Amino acid sequence: MGEALAGFRPARRTPVETVALTDALGRVPAAPLTAREALPGFARATVDGYAVRAADTYGASDGLPAPLDVAGAVHMGTTPDTEVGAGTAVAIPTGGMLPPGADAVVMIEHTAEAMPGVVEVRRPVAPGDGLVRAGEDAAAGAQVAPAGRPLRPQDLGMLAAAGIVAMEVHARPRVAIVSTGDEVVAPATPVLAPGQVRDACAAALGAMVQAAGGAPDPRGIVADDRGALTAALGAAVAEADVVVVSAGSSVGARDDTAAVVAGLGPPGIWCHGLALKPGKPTLLAECDGVPVVGLPGNPRSALVVFRLMGVPVVQRAGGMTTPPPEPVVRARLDRDLPSAAGRLDVVQVAVRDGVATPLFGASALLSMLTAADGELRVPEAATGLDAGAEVDVTLYR
Amino acid sequence: MGEALAGFRPARRTPVETVALTDALGRVPAAPLTAREALPGFARATVDGYAVRAADTYGASDGLPAPLDVAGAVHMGTTPDTEVGAGTAVAIPTGGMLPPGADAVVMIEHTAEAMPGVVEVRRPVAPGDGLVRAGEDAAAGAQVAPAGRPLRPQDLGMLAAAGIVAMEVHARPRVAIVSTGDEVVAPATPVLAPGQVRDACAAALGAMVQAAGGAPDPRGIVADDRGALTAALGAAVAEADVVVVSAGSSVGARDDTAAVVAGLGPPGIWCHGLALKPGKPTLLAECDGVPVVGLPGNPRSALVVFRLMGVPVVQRAGGMTTPPPEPVVRARLDRDLPSAAGRLDVVQVAVRDGVATPLFGASALLSMLTAADGELRVPEAATGLDAGAEVDVTLYR
Repeated sequence: MGEALAGFRPARRTPVETVALTDALGRVPAAPLTAREALPGFARATVDGYAVRAADTYGASDGLPAPLDVAGAVHMGTTPDTEVGAGTAVAIPTGGMLPPGADAVVMIEHTAEAMPGVVEVRRPVAPGDGLVRAGEDAAAGAQVAPAGRPLRPQDLGMLAAAGIVAMEVHARPRVAIVSTGDEVVAPATPVLAPGQVRDACAAALGAMVQAAGGAPDPRGIVADDRGALTAALGAAVAEADVVVVSAGSSVGARDDTAAVVAGLGPPGIWCHGLALKPGKPTLLAECDGVPVVGLPGNPRSALVVFRLMGVPVVQRAGGMTTPPPEPVVRARLDRDLPSAAGRLDVVQVAVRDGVATPLFGASALLSMLTAADGELRVPEAATGLDAGAEVDVTLYR
Repeated sequence: MGEALAGFRPARRTPVETVALTDALGRVPAAPLTAREALPGFARATVDGYAVRAADTYGASDGLPAPLDVAGAVHMGTTPDTEVGAGTAVAIPTGGMLPPGADAVVMIEHTAEAMPGVVEVRRPVAPGDGLVRAGEDAAAGAQVAPAGRPLRPQDLGMLAAAGIVAMEVHARPRVAIVSTGDEVVAPATPVLAPGQVRDACAAALGAMVQAAGGAPDPRGIVADDRGALTAALGAAVAEADVVVVSAGSSVGARDDTAAVVAGLGPPGIWCHGLALKPGKPTLLAECDGVPVVGLPGNPRSALVVFRLMGVPVVQRAGGMTTPPPEPVVRARLDRDLPSAAGRLDVVQVAVRDGVATPLFGASALLSMLTAADGELRVPEAATGLDAGAEVDVTLYR
């Protein structure tokens, strides 16, 4: 199972497209983005106070302040017109451009106006105090955002500071979602005939694709018929970057999916059946370079497997090499949890005040997932967990 | 600081609007959503096998199998036309509708075909085994998604199963972002004049608003002028659900912001100045029912404060009572971290292999945030943390 997860790495990547800065949250740069100029472009005060020569303040104290002549004031957004010479100071606001001749800024709180035109400095400063140097946020040519990591709010701030208002990112991977099953009908069906169920998986899978940075392409419900499935999957492989089959849950539907996928194109099926509970009948394949993920028929199993196996495939297809961190919380298990060795068990849990309570129920029950705060992954090597054990719960968001 | 965070709870909520299921990821239901019918609507097999009367299997074993007459087969999505009588079985696929008379399903793995038309059952089953009952996922009228919690992928799955393809949610709160400062120019400015900087905060704040479920409404850059600021903030308060002022960093700009906000409408300023590093000059106000957040002028301080104080305000305005969990990771601090008691310190850290390394630098440096994996919040009561301490790092995503 671990090997299946680690080893299935289709090479498919989406092409590059240009997006505006305002649309770039969560988008994945195709190449590192660099500053074309130093940031900031000039030395700036980080406090309100006086620009000085640091040497003029050495030894200054409350008892023996250093008096300096105030030669002028810096105005925001303009070049200072006054030079700071020996024995002089220039008033400067936070963010103001350091005037020529100055090498430090004294905080206003450490000064006093002795008489009009003269300021007394009561603390010494060292060169560089009270300012940021030109290029301290980014040197000219320096990387401001790496390739492969979705852009975060602060990254957009840095790009704005650098004047980068459009950038090349990977296109969102188009993820075809093919639902199958003669018992499955569209969610909008107002009244169900006996034996029918609405398609729960396509909506949930589409949302997981969105959260993984992809563009869901729901392709409707295909009958449990080998010809229909062949046509639907053939078209999906030709048009999408990733194909997900939310398989009918009958034996026939599962067998059909595997047979059709095997015929779609090389290299074909990578693995079929995982040491995973729930989710054993999962199918991983690559057809003509397009990753295909065949999910178990039970909705809960399907969503658990897609989170574990499908989301990383979508993220990689979209160029993500550093996916965003998942919320994980440490909790104490409130009861024994048996598990078979050699199989990864995914167990839904409710978490309250640091205590994780496992939820139990059939694989078919979606309510297991809606009632859960997150899931606990019992590794293949473990034969179970004891009550009181500290566990990491991956929270659902 | 803790009190400021807990106590500032403006009552403003956005109105309700209707969204389609396919657009509902992350949206916040305005009222609990309920199933109008039982889910599933009928008892369904959870395994491939045979629908039986459990009593007919009691005592069955490999050595003494129970032979049953196969009276027919269930087809997916249709009402079974065969009743299960005493001594008979009906073949059923996973997901199939339980035929009348049956009370359990025997897995196919625990059966053998003795001769055509007869199946031998080799394990006993109890009533209810191998099936989910009608209404087991949700009873008719039961809540399938609570109010106030952003809809997750599995919630959309459950809503699809329940046939809820449109629903009432809170409108996204419109968040006006007002930038000020004579030194600040638009990000698209290709060449900066000396002393100018591009507006980094508006882009980053807009992205944080998006991530909090809001709709950013960037209102451009206002000059450091009380009249201009009054006009801009007056219009913002009249039109938006939340107003954020990315203040100029000069003393004058800060004083102007506070004076203008105080004049905008009751109840007015809630607090001005927080025991928070970085972020002391933060302003929280409510003007004519609209929350107003005035941020410090330094970009790093502004973004740290907005994450801590502004995001919860936006989430609440959008009806969120249960915000999505933030990713938090436990890590070991690799050096001593001094902190003043009585002040919340927010420290950016890099995290590698469970070790958190604090980053140090000026409040003005955005690169502190882009280089960081997350932040560490040193509580007001602490006077610092020792090297080796276990800390919780809130990861940036």
